[in-house]
Amino acid sequence: MKRRHLLAGIAAVAGVGLSGCQSSCDEGVSLDRETVFHWKMVTSWPQNFPGLGTGARDLAQLIEQMSGGRIKITLYGAGELVGPFEVFDAVSQGRAELGHSTPYYWKGKLACADFFTVVPMGLTAEEMNAWFYYGGGLALWEEAYKPFGLIPNPAGNSGTQMGGWFNREINSLADMKGLKIRMPGLGAEVYSKIGAVPVNLPGTELYQAMQTGVIDAVEYVGPYNDLALGFHRVAKFYYSPGWQEPGSAIECMINAKAFAQLPADLQSIVRNAMKVANLMMLSEYTARNQQALVTLVEKHGVQLRRFPDDVLGELKRYSAEVVEAAAARDPLSQRVWASQKAFRDQVAPWTGLSLKSFLDLREL
Amino acid sequence: MKRRHLLAGIAAVAGVGLSGCQSSCDEGVSLDRETVFHWKMVTSWPQNFPGLGTGARDLAQLIEQMSGGRIKITLYGAGELVGPFEVFDAVSQGRAELGHSTPYYWKGKLACADFFTVVPMGLTAEEMNAWFYYGGGLALWEEAYKPFGLIPNPAGNSGTQMGGWFNREINSLADMKGLKIRMPGLGAEVYSKIGAVPVNLPGTELYQAMQTGVIDAVEYVGPYNDLALGFHRVAKFYYSPGWQEPGSAIECMINAKAFAQLPADLQSIVRNAMKVANLMMLSEYTARNQQALVTLVEKHGVQLRRFPDDVLGELKRYSAEVVEAAAARDPLSQRVWASQKAFRDQVAPWTGLSLKSFLDLREL
Repeated sequence: MKRRHLLAGIAAVAGVGLSGCQSSCDEGVSLDRETVFHWKMVTSWPQNFPGLGTGARDLAQLIEQMSGGRIKITLYGAGELVGPFEVFDAVSQGRAELGHSTPYYWKGKLACADFFTVVPMGLTAEEMNAWFYYGGGLALWEEAYKPFGLIPNPAGNSGTQMGGWFNREINSLADMKGLKIRMPGLGAEVYSKIGAVPVNLPGTELYQAMQTGVIDAVEYVGPYNDLALGFHRVAKFYYSPGWQEPGSAIECMINAKAFAQLPADLQSIVRNAMKVANLMMLSEYTARNQQALVTLVEKHGVQLRRFPDDVLGELKRYSAEVVEAAAARDPLSQRVWASQKAFRDQVAPWTGLSLKSFLDLREL
Repeated sequence: MKRRHLLAGIAAVAGVGLSGCQSSCDEGVSLDRETVFHWKMVTSWPQNFPGLGTGARDLAQLIEQMSGGRIKITLYGAGELVGPFEVFDAVSQGRAELGHSTPYYWKGKLACADFFTVVPMGLTAEEMNAWFYYGGGLALWEEAYKPFGLIPNPAGNSGTQMGGWFNREINSLADMKGLKIRMPGLGAEVYSKIGAVPVNLPGTELYQAMQTGVIDAVEYVGPYNDLALGFHRVAKFYYSPGWQEPGSAIECMINAKAFAQLPADLQSIVRNAMKVANLMMLSEYTARNQQALVTLVEKHGVQLRRFPDDVLGELKRYSAEVVEAAAARDPLSQRVWASQKAFRDQVAPWTGLSLKSFLDLREL
């Protein structure tokens, strides 16, 4: 017998209904405060992987803590319950209640998924959050996941990523032709356009893929993750800027049926814990990336390079084509991109006038 | 009689202790889930003032919602219970449990307070959060507020502010001499150095102060707030960049004694609600500032100007002097600035390589 039933029984014995509020107690208090929900969280990263795995762990702990133990979460690293690219299906099917991943991994199931992680030459982390919460982005994302029985949430952001690790210097677009590069999302489609061969592999397989020549170049996140994965041992040149991922969103999807069973206070706790996770992950990446970069350069002799301007110009042109083509895939993709594009066109001049203008000055 | 006492009475009658956990219920569950805490939140802004007042309101509602009504908060706008600059004392003395404001208003009581809002030429919003949560900043802030019986929390950020509204064009530093300008924090001390006359006034008094000539120039936040306050009706030139406030933190302080009386789950809810508020306020400013800027320029004919480079160079030089002098005020200020400076010197090159490098490309 569950504790709340026990209490209800006691109350019945004592002749006082639990819902019968006396003059001394406040109204509007949800009374199911005893049921404990046992949930599973599956993820696309190893347990405790810097930033991403620790982000999932911290989120699970936060929900337990704020709920006072009324939600208990068992965390599964990639491959422990399901594979890193099976998270979406697992949560959709109810094999887990929570899934910590990133939307562009699901582009094969949902054409518009790319737009909820990141768009090449698109929004930064700060702007993505502004679009999600105050620009209609999250409402569109919810609409997109609804047919799968899922509720999406931004639950982290990597900040602006790097452009990737290369074994040779990139002096022209020709140097990228034929290159087998690990790259997901719309960035991969840009690489296809210029004659490279993008493949998507989970983070855990990248080091070996580089070592064995399965791929020639790799882009994962940024210094904090890349140092942990040891890319400096298999590639020499580290390129910026991350034109393809200016601010990549991490998600935590919820099984909608499981969510509906929670009382209102726990629903609020779960969804707001994800906002906390969103803030904390970006803060952690911001703090740790530079430490890792210093280690990469000073200890491991990594060569920092910036893509040549004409290469960036071409990548920008192809990015616009790829994004428009992605938007044309179906009516929902079209609406999502129309919303995000309008937001970008509006927010970019403000970011330029305020944040960028300040950063220019600080570097003077 | 409080509801939990009522239930305890019932349980006693029925011969079952509330703390006697049956095999079917989980351990580690805090059992005080019935007490309702009635708290007050005082603020330095009017109720529902864009971004700041709405941020305080949303935070209060979020705490109520996540706590399932176990914390009820009565919100007071500036001047309703205490004046906008009396928030710190009111919460310190226990006249309110929560205070929504910004640290640099308390520099008269606490020398290092400036560093927890913003430093001219210092950290951006993203970097401030990284410093607070992953760079030791919040721990130092907690140490600073502890003697006052207060627990500080970042609870919002304005993002990069504007440089202010002026009645005449600024072509040289000489144009700023003698100017009576509304400016708080360390930015005010820089203006003093160059021969201007900074004054601090709450937001609600600024329009009239400009209109009556009490001040000649005004800096408050950015387009979203400045449009609401009507500055375009009393000044013509709107300057960027906001060299003096690249990412100003908003705080919500907690009375430490009141906090200690909360059960663990509510403590977590209160402190994490403030992180949610932090994320949401910056997101809102990012989304709304550009909309307001378009209105200011297109509808009201506001003239956008950038401070001349030599003026910015001088302001940068004076800023460094002012910040070092502020750090020398007492040993705690010295430690706080040493921490923030080391963090800035570390994070600025990363922001330059990643975010700024991307923003340069996007503007190409």
